Amino acid sequence: MTNLQSELRNLPGSAEAYPAQDGPFGVIGLGEGALAAELLQSLVDRRLTREGTQFVLTSTEWEASAEDYMRLAEVSGAKALRFGGGELDKLAGLVERGVTATYHFAQRVAYATGHADEAQEAERLLAGVRDRCVPEVQEGNPARDLAWSLWTRTPLLLAPDQDAFLVWAWQLALARVGKSLSVPVERDALYILTGAFEARHESGDNRVALILGEEDDEMAIAREVLQTRVDEVIFVPYPEGVGGYSGGLATWYFALWVAFYLAERYGVSPEDASPLREVIASLESANDSGARLN
Amino acid sequence: MTNLQSELRNLPGSAEAYPAQDGPFGVIGLGEGALAAELLQSLVDRRLTREGTQFVLTSTEWEASAEDYMRLAEVSGAKALRFGGGELDKLAGLVERGVTATYHFAQRVAYATGHADEAQEAERLLAGVRDRCVPEVQEGNPARDLAWSLWTRTPLLLAPDQDAFLVWAWQLALARVGKSLSVPVERDALYILTGAFEARHESGDNRVALILGEEDDEMAIAREVLQTRVDEVIFVPYPEGVGGYSGGLATWYFALWVAFYLAERYGVSPEDASPLREVIASLESANDSGARLN
Repeated sequence: MTNLQSELRNLPGSAEAYPAQDGPFGVIGLGEGALAAELLQSLVDRRLTREGTQFVLTSTEWEASAEDYMRLAEVSGAKALRFGGGELDKLAGLVERGVTATYHFAQRVAYATGHADEAQEAERLLAGVRDRCVPEVQEGNPARDLAWSLWTRTPLLLAPDQDAFLVWAWQLALARVGKSLSVPVERDALYILTGAFEARHESGDNRVALILGEEDDEMAIAREVLQTRVDEVIFVPYPEGVGGYSGGLATWYFALWVAFYLAERYGVSPEDASPLREVIASLESANDSGARLN
Repeated sequence: MTNLQSELRNLPGSAEAYPAQDGPFGVIGLGEGALAAELLQSLVDRRLTREGTQFVLTSTEWEASAEDYMRLAEVSGAKALRFGGGELDKLAGLVERGVTATYHFAQRVAYATGHADEAQEAERLLAGVRDRCVPEVQEGNPARDLAWSLWTRTPLLLAPDQDAFLVWAWQLALARVGKSLSVPVERDALYILTGAFEARHESGDNRVALILGEEDDEMAIAREVLQTRVDEVIFVPYPEGVGGYSGGLATWYFALWVAFYLAERYGVSPEDASPLREVIASLESANDSGARLN
């Protein structure tokens, strides 16, 4: 069993709760914390707050920026809590680097902002996804089936407007874990899809489109446009049809399972590629020297 | 001369000023107004405001949602001004549908929010782009040169974090005008680029990457990663190196010229494709019936 497989398998229910803090709340994310901060916009209105509690979710390569956000919040009169990597005495909680960091960041902040119900609903949905998607489910495993549909094809990723999180989560999972390129069409889908295949009709070959989350009026029309332009259009609904924070997190988790099977199908490792570790180290040292100059 | 060519040529300096309103300001955009609203976040902090002046930028297919935003602002005590298409007595100003609508929306709101200096700086930058990019500039025309570099290749679009506008503007221009598909990598560029080409090395063939706006530390590392993964990496700086609102608008305008030459090179029309007009009409009638049900 790969590390990632056991990590995914053991993920549901593994989040640490965090005591509820005083609002209003702001959540900003950098590096490994950025995707979680985007998802948390469904629970928390603001990125930055001058009162209540400011959460800063970050990995170590953004140390200097993270410290800036912490100071900014404290100067304004907010309590600032930092989760992620870095020196332990600066952290309200450690979140290890890795593809599952999004879950640990998100759930901790969900609890800390008083959204224990949503956090527990997310755990329930994740456990359901896990039970349907683990490798021992041979028949009708939705993650493996979808991965096989994506194999050797470049997926277009679409979602209803305002659901930037879904498109981002899938693009990242397919690249970081599935080692595959995808084409996000996050906004203005109808304007983009009606034009993008006109000059080179062959550029629609070997393409599949995923409609993520919900199929609203705009997505239904996008589906019609796509029928004549790509090989297949696949609707990937929220697990159990539940949207919002908990459904977003469950969709992210499902995407990781799909990407895991896709890497397996390509015969490549689903673990972080060694170039990623190298570039993160480069960014860390670039940001460190930048911080020293300031 | 195509309609679009003369429209682009005559664009700089054609914006109508609008009297400055009372702040604070909120700007929300729908349909043809969405991209302009994103750019205007560099001048205005909020999407929605409960006091001061709320701007609603929209085309007719989002009539019902536009009315909702207008009512919401007015009930909260803000003045609500709507620009775009629709019944004239509901509009503070008409903005015709089309690829250049972004400019008319954006400049009008720039003036209306008291940013006349930025609006005039944008006009100066646009005029410079026009003078360098019109077809009679045969040698060293940066828009035509870049279009030829993009021909038969699928561009990856990258920009420093927080510059979502640039990536969106290029994806839309290349599709709607250039009739070509591109691959936005708007966030987590290092995480995505180090993974996305591992499973299928050939998927980097015939690819070019555009780094838009500025080359910060992260983009410099992204460039290194890309060197071994795509054919060519091209830096597309802000016109005259000026960022912010005015540089963003000038970059958008430059993207339209590039897309115009790209369509020409492919031998296709740069005008809106007829499927676009059809899908907008479908969306209009879907939203109308939705509105009637409410």
